[in-house]
Amino acid sequence: MKDECKKKTEPAYAVADPDRLRRCGAGEVIYGAGKTAEQICGILRMLRENGQENILVSRLDAQKEAEVKSLLSASEAASWTYYAVPKAAVFGGMLPASGHGTIAVVTAGTSDIPVAEEAAVTAEFLGNAVQRIYDVGVAGLDRLLARKADIQAASVIIVIAGMEGALASVVGGLVSAPVIAVPTSVGYGANFEGLSALLAMLNSCASGVSVVNIDNGFGAGYQASAINHVGV
Amino acid sequence: MKDECKKKTEPAYAVADPDRLRRCGAGEVIYGAGKTAEQICGILRMLRENGQENILVSRLDAQKEAEVKSLLSASEAASWTYYAVPKAAVFGGMLPASGHGTIAVVTAGTSDIPVAEEAAVTAEFLGNAVQRIYDVGVAGLDRLLARKADIQAASVIIVIAGMEGALASVVGGLVSAPVIAVPTSVGYGANFEGLSALLAMLNSCASGVSVVNIDNGFGAGYQASAINHVGV
Amino acid sequence: MKDECKKKTEPAYAVADPDRLRRCGAGEVIYGAGKTAEQICGILRMLRENGQENILVSRLDAQKEAEVKSLLSASEAASWTYYAVPKAAVFGGMLPASGHGTIAVVTAGTSDIPVAEEAAVTAEFLGNAVQRIYDVGVAGLDRLLARKADIQAASVIIVIAGMEGALASVVGGLVSAPVIAVPTSVGYGANFEGLSALLAMLNSCASGVSVVNIDNGFGAGYQASAINHVGV
Amino acid sequence: MKDECKKKTEPAYAVADPDRLRRCGAGEVIYGAGKTAEQICGILRMLRENGQENILVSRLDAQKEAEVKSLLSASEAASWTYYAVPKAAVFGGMLPASGHGTIAVVTAGTSDIPVAEEAAVTAEFLGNAVQRIYDVGVAGLDRLLARKADIQAASVIIVIAGMEGALASVVGGLVSAPVIAVPTSVGYGANFEGLSALLAMLNSCASGVSVVNIDNGFGAGYQASAINHVGV
Amino acid sequence: MKDECKKKTEPAYAVADPDRLRRCGAGEVIYGAGKTAEQICGILRMLRENGQENILVSRLDAQKEAEVKSLLSASEAASWTYYAVPKAAVFGGMLPASGHGTIAVVTAGTSDIPVAEEAAVTAEFLGNAVQRIYDVGVAGLDRLLARKADIQAASVIIVIAGMEGALASVVGGLVSAPVIAVPTSVGYGANFEGLSALLAMLNSCASGVSVVNIDNGFGAGYQASAINHVGV
Amino acid sequence: MKDECKKKTEPAYAVADPDRLRRCGAGEVIYGAGKTAEQICGILRMLRENGQENILVSRLDAQKEAEVKSLLSASEAASWTYYAVPKAAVFGGMLPASGHGTIAVVTAGTSDIPVAEEAAVTAEFLGNAVQRIYDVGVAGLDRLLARKADIQAASVIIVIAGMEGALASVVGGLVSAPVIAVPTSVGYGANFEGLSALLAMLNSCASGVSVVNIDNGFGAGYQASAINHVGV
Amino acid sequence: MKDECKKKTEPAYAVADPDRLRRCGAGEVIYGAGKTAEQICGILRMLRENGQENILVSRLDAQKEAEVKSLLSASEAASWTYYAVPKAAVFGGMLPASGHGTIAVVTAGTSDIPVAEEAAVTAEFLGNAVQRIYDVGVAGLDRLLARKADIQAASVIIVIAGMEGALASVVGGLVSAPVIAVPTSVGYGANFEGLSALLAMLNSCASGVSVVNIDNGFGAGYQASAINHVGV
Amino acid sequence: MKDECKKKTEPAYAVADPDRLRRCGAGEVIYGAGKTAEQICGILRMLRENGQENILVSRLDAQKEAEVKSLLSASEAASWTYYAVPKAAVFGGMLPASGHGTIAVVTAGTSDIPVAEEAAVTAEFLGNAVQRIYDVGVAGLDRLLARKADIQAASVIIVIAGMEGALASVVGGLVSAPVIAVPTSVGYGANFEGLSALLAMLNSCASGVSVVNIDNGFGAGYQASAINHVGV
Repeated sequence: MKDECKKKTEPAYAVADPDRLRRCGAGEVIYGAGKTAEQICGILRMLRENGQENILVSRLDAQKEAEVKSLLSASEAASWTYYAVPKAAVFGGMLPASGHGTIAVVTAGTSDIPVAEEAAVTAEFLGNAVQRIYDVGVAGLDRLLARKADIQAASVIIVIAGMEGALASVVGGLVSAPVIAVPTSVGYGANFEGLSALLAMLNSCASGVSVVNIDNGFGAGYQASAINHVGV
Repeated sequence: MKDECKKKTEPAYAVADPDRLRRCGAGEVIYGAGKTAEQICGILRMLRENGQENILVSRLDAQKEAEVKSLLSASEAASWTYYAVPKAAVFGGMLPASGHGTIAVVTAGTSDIPVAEEAAVTAEFLGNAVQRIYDVGVAGLDRLLARKADIQAASVIIVIAGMEGALASVVGGLVSAPVIAVPTSVGYGANFEGLSALLAMLNSCASGVSVVNIDNGFGAGYQASAINHVGV
Repeated sequence: MKDECKKKTEPAYAVADPDRLRRCGAGEVIYGAGKTAEQICGILRMLRENGQENILVSRLDAQKEAEVKSLLSASEAASWTYYAVPKAAVFGGMLPASGHGTIAVVTAGTSDIPVAEEAAVTAEFLGNAVQRIYDVGVAGLDRLLARKADIQAASVIIVIAGMEGALASVVGGLVSAPVIAVPTSVGYGANFEGLSALLAMLNSCASGVSVVNIDNGFGAGYQASAINHVGV
Repeated sequence: MKDECKKKTEPAYAVADPDRLRRCGAGEVIYGAGKTAEQICGILRMLRENGQENILVSRLDAQKEAEVKSLLSASEAASWTYYAVPKAAVFGGMLPASGHGTIAVVTAGTSDIPVAEEAAVTAEFLGNAVQRIYDVGVAGLDRLLARKADIQAASVIIVIAGMEGALASVVGGLVSAPVIAVPTSVGYGANFEGLSALLAMLNSCASGVSVVNIDNGFGAGYQASAINHVGV
Repeated sequence: MKDECKKKTEPAYAVADPDRLRRCGAGEVIYGAGKTAEQICGILRMLRENGQENILVSRLDAQKEAEVKSLLSASEAASWTYYAVPKAAVFGGMLPASGHGTIAVVTAGTSDIPVAEEAAVTAEFLGNAVQRIYDVGVAGLDRLLARKADIQAASVIIVIAGMEGALASVVGGLVSAPVIAVPTSVGYGANFEGLSALLAMLNSCASGVSVVNIDNGFGAGYQASAINHVGV
Repeated sequence: MKDECKKKTEPAYAVADPDRLRRCGAGEVIYGAGKTAEQICGILRMLRENGQENILVSRLDAQKEAEVKSLLSASEAASWTYYAVPKAAVFGGMLPASGHGTIAVVTAGTSDIPVAEEAAVTAEFLGNAVQRIYDVGVAGLDRLLARKADIQAASVIIVIAGMEGALASVVGGLVSAPVIAVPTSVGYGANFEGLSALLAMLNSCASGVSVVNIDNGFGAGYQASAINHVGV
Repeated sequence: MKDECKKKTEPAYAVADPDRLRRCGAGEVIYGAGKTAEQICGILRMLRENGQENILVSRLDAQKEAEVKSLLSASEAASWTYYAVPKAAVFGGMLPASGHGTIAVVTAGTSDIPVAEEAAVTAEFLGNAVQRIYDVGVAGLDRLLARKADIQAASVIIVIAGMEGALASVVGGLVSAPVIAVPTSVGYGANFEGLSALLAMLNSCASGVSVVNIDNGFGAGYQASAINHVGV
Repeated sequence: MKDECKKKTEPAYAVADPDRLRRCGAGEVIYGAGKTAEQICGILRMLRENGQENILVSRLDAQKEAEVKSLLSASEAASWTYYAVPKAAVFGGMLPASGHGTIAVVTAGTSDIPVAEEAAVTAEFLGNAVQRIYDVGVAGLDRLLARKADIQAASVIIVIAGMEGALASVVGGLVSAPVIAVPTSVGYGANFEGLSALLAMLNSCASGVSVVNIDNGFGAGYQASAINHVGV
């Protein structure tokens, strides 16, 4: 199967965008869900042939990752790292940290960590220093206030919360830096798979908060990196 | 028109529930929206004939209140008080304050005050001491923390917030007393007329929070009174 | 694996809130869904080190419970009890019953019992006497009216119903005590996984009813306990 | 304008269905909302020319009714009766009551009466005896149980309720006759203009309940008449 | 396990309603979903001890049916019949057909048949003659019109359709008998698991149509039987 | 004000797209809702200066039309025609009819006519012969079948219906030509302002049906014209 | 089992529509989801006996396809072709390409290909030349603009996109041919299983766009074929 | 009334947050909707007494603005400027432009301009250079591509679009700077008052896009300013 895959560097199912790196400052990311291992492998090679050295594959569960890996050559496999919790793989390593400062990734609870790690790994991949601040939800304000200095020191803050998503508003009221809020599907019943946190964050009473899709740690990490590099 | 109204003490459009006062510990309340002034007047008299001395009329806008008042006899009008902000009228006065302690009515913003006043007046009507704590939303935690002692001293707390409704969770994490959360329709766009705050409050990460209908200050005040009188 | 877990008493994924017991009158509860067995075990130990003797773990299915148990030391396991129907575990035993009186847990049907047991076990864990009154839905009023005296004698009533959730309104009209309504996801089609009962309960025509999240037996039990201890 | 209207008996905007009376056992009804007075007048004459003697015009507010009336000839106006509360007009009078028995029209509250009257007038128009039983909502069960004999004696029961719509299930559990439930838009907030009652009624735990559109008193009256004449 | 089950004729999880047969003209039906085999068996015996001879168990999948059957005594098993397509069991046989006439069960497509069979078996169980008319959806009007006489001859018509549910309106325009519409979850995408057909049927332009829950063949069969026996 | 407007041919609020006529085969249409009369006037002139001779202004209510007209010069006004029912204006006249054949515009009821006229006028403006077939909804199939030949003779059929939107499926089953379905907001309650018809049409069991936005007569007319000119 | 199936050519579960081929210009298609292999086999034979030579079976997953194939006779199996990616089978081969020109099938991403193939195979089955243009989503406009000539040369364009569905509007602005938009369920979170793309496409700012159901490649292919044959 | 207002500098309905300017780098903004003119006036003075020199009042319609102005003293009025299109007032003037670069405010259509102006005025108030790029929606790509250089030169881009909101994705694919997307309620029918654009933007296939509430120009301007000042 490896041979068949190798030939697929200009596949029928995907089109290269060689100008993207110059235009957007970051290469394309492969969204792994809904693609076969062969397609992921093929796109990976197409991107490399178009000059992209560092590639992130998101939403790649452990089983499909094993399939992809089995399709890689030995030298390709040497450049491949898999991060199990955010279910993401990095090809070619992460960029060195640059930008205005640190990106803080803050979660309300323990169950939000997989989404937070997707954000953190994405930001690190794109060349940012990341500080993880987990399990500081608003039901115990002391836990949050104990980390206030860390949060206020960051250039950008990513706030990740499910259920009622209140953490975004509370953090938004503590800082002058921009806040990217990520609603998660953590919860049950009337959370409607993340709708409660999504609506809450869109309606935040704090002013400097914008929102990405439910469970979209990747998008938050990407946007935070762009913000951290504004004017750089 | 007054005469016609006077005869309508057993009207076709309403049925007395004389056992209710004994059974539920509180008389019926007249929900004014969707009823004509004549119907409100008729029900008021029917309730009085069935032994209820103190009657609350909720959701009674200023224009309809004037119509109702014009239908009352002079002695009836003497027992009638109208509260313009919560759009509620009280007939026969409020009960003296009793119960375990004080009911705190807390709002996130200035725009939530009409709903808060409906809760406060209802609780006062039913015989409770009420403490109003307004405009302490989570975007400025200092404002809230400055009132922490007052909130922690209350027997029951009613939290009223629109937009993302985060205040309910933050207050819920500060106290051991039960919290009744009231989502309001304050906001616009993706608040979907109160849905954002409603879902947020139903999914609160704080444990002791229950919720009533959007803008239902009356229900919160009634429930808080019942709680404040448990075991009394 | 036990050794590795033992060391994780201050884990990266969770933060202790040692002041909570004093502030809220009840220790933290571990919400088991979405956490690994190792995380649950680690949080359990962290809480104990912070002085919490009695710990409830909710939403813990049988398989994960077995995993958690296998991580416990012998002395820890001796303090551990698992309740299969509500899928909850109690560490350190339940508190002795106190408060103003009894909490009645009332269900509409047989299928609502798992949620009811979550409420009942939570209330018992927090130190309340509980009376279970099951399968008294409104389609057979005689079944409900036969238990009217029991329901009216309670300090707090938890009403648990799926489908159209009508039981909350009928019970709410029978009592002066506060009613906590729990919509369940029992039903199919246009119940939209509990939405029908949730909306019905939020719009109850009975006055003293507040609502918690769909299937949130835990929240109802917690809130009922807080109410049962108001002013105590 | 009268002359112009008179000529419009075969208008461009409407098509006669002369076979309908034979096929469906009832003539067409003119749904007044969204039609101009001229259109209503034109359709009325077209129906009469096609042999329909008795015609119901529903959803006709007072202002448009006045416009229609001004377009009628003197002899036409003599056959025209307007019912202000359900906003319906009858041309040619009501049919004499026939069918198996009585149709009971039962409401939860006073505010549901306009919808109830639309159902009652429709059923009377189609030749049924109607018994009105208003304001017997479930928050005061005694009011309902006092009318149990009347309700159980009916051939068909129409139950009309807003808010949580619980009355449909309670009545459904008391009778063997078919129950037609009509959700109303009475309420506010999370009733979402009748959605709460609609979902509740569709999910009724009582078995013999079917449902029509929100505020559709007409549909309920029509269906109840069809049921009351089954096999006649 | 049989012995244990036998003793559970007055179980903690269910309450008998012995008056129901007299009051509603039909015994209770056991809704099988969400109950264990032991609970179903226990309720079955409780109902029989309370005098109900004929019992329907709905929503009973093949696996649980096998479990229930293994709990039955030999004489009990002899009275037990299982209908695989509607996933329903009948204990004690069906009642002989009575009522005004025939109940027509009409489907739009082949995929709607399981719901149709639930309606048909329920109606037969309750003592009605049933005529099945399947796969006559509106995309091929000739198929429907070929059965017009059969449909017009029925006392009650149950129309079962998924997707856009148009069949209910077309049939409703052909008959004078009452039409019970059952939306099904057949379809995909923007049918939102039956919502499209549900809304369509609630908004039918034909007058004599009422609606039950999505996929609720049982409710339609029950209601149709009640209608077929009005005044009998 | 006329002078000020005259100068605004390259306004700050709108940008010309001079290539559009060549690219899309039809000039831009001005969507009148949400624009001021001055803006409409300014865009009109900008389009003419960019070579567009025939311009349609949609969603232009009578009052705003009067304002626009007052801003036009005498020669401009001579080229301006207003169609009151679809609330549309045509500048420069309609194109002569061309294309494969006739576009049939079919409505379920009288209340759907305003949307139908928007479709018809749009199609005529773009150079199509249009046949109007109104009030042939499915509750009276004879009315529809009487026009079957006309409908089957058309090159494209636009079906316009509110409520349950069943007409689209029935017409879709009668023809080989493409059907464009337009859901309308006609109805009330659970039609949710057109949602019921929209979902029904998207789920049509007939194969050749595609759908445009609720009340979007313009879009249907435009698409039908494009279809009628395919390959021409 | 083969024998039993053979006899089922006039089954109880399906009705032939022999006039359809003449009336609609295309034979019936068997929607495979929700039907058993026996039913599919039976309907296939019924259609052939009614004169249909070419039959498409959609939504037929690999496992059920194997079951169907095992029921076919050897000569039947020789006429049967299965397309794994769109999960569709063709019996009797595809029609030769005819019509005005080519149908372009355009996707935003790689994950949309299964829906695109359903559209393409359907259009080919019905006798159309198809050009596939995949992975040209709007985040990289160069990829799309590189194919502008191909897209502008087509007679009909099918645009297939998930997530935000923006491709439909961009393509709609580039062409004069009609555009059929197919929203897909590709995405997660607030795409609500295709709702985001569906709403976006219904609200397209480009004029010549109509929409089919989520993931309904079949419907788009069918409609495109009808358009491609208008006036032929 | 002026005197009464003057005394209200520490009103019951609002609480000062004097630390906010230091903490968040920007003073509080007064959200004008839902507040009375007296309340706005009172809060204005309270903020000034707490040291805030520059104050923005958003969502202030012309009528209420006149009321507020009549309450101001002459010296206060001299510092007050009203912007009619975004319905916003600025007290104390705008800050001089600083930050990394320019904020581009881009709209899809003319009707989106009021929201765009709210964003632009907010950003200018907070000290940013703003470039307005209006009416460049995706249905005419040439209009957008003509402004590509301007858009790519900006430090932050705010994209404002109603209907299907596709512009956010197209712009997101053109730039490396962060994009803030603002869905507007422009449109009708299935736009559900902005829901279509909101969902589209949340599901953007372009990576660097985050979203604020529907019509929330203020929030976008505020967030863009924070981004433009990161690390400054």
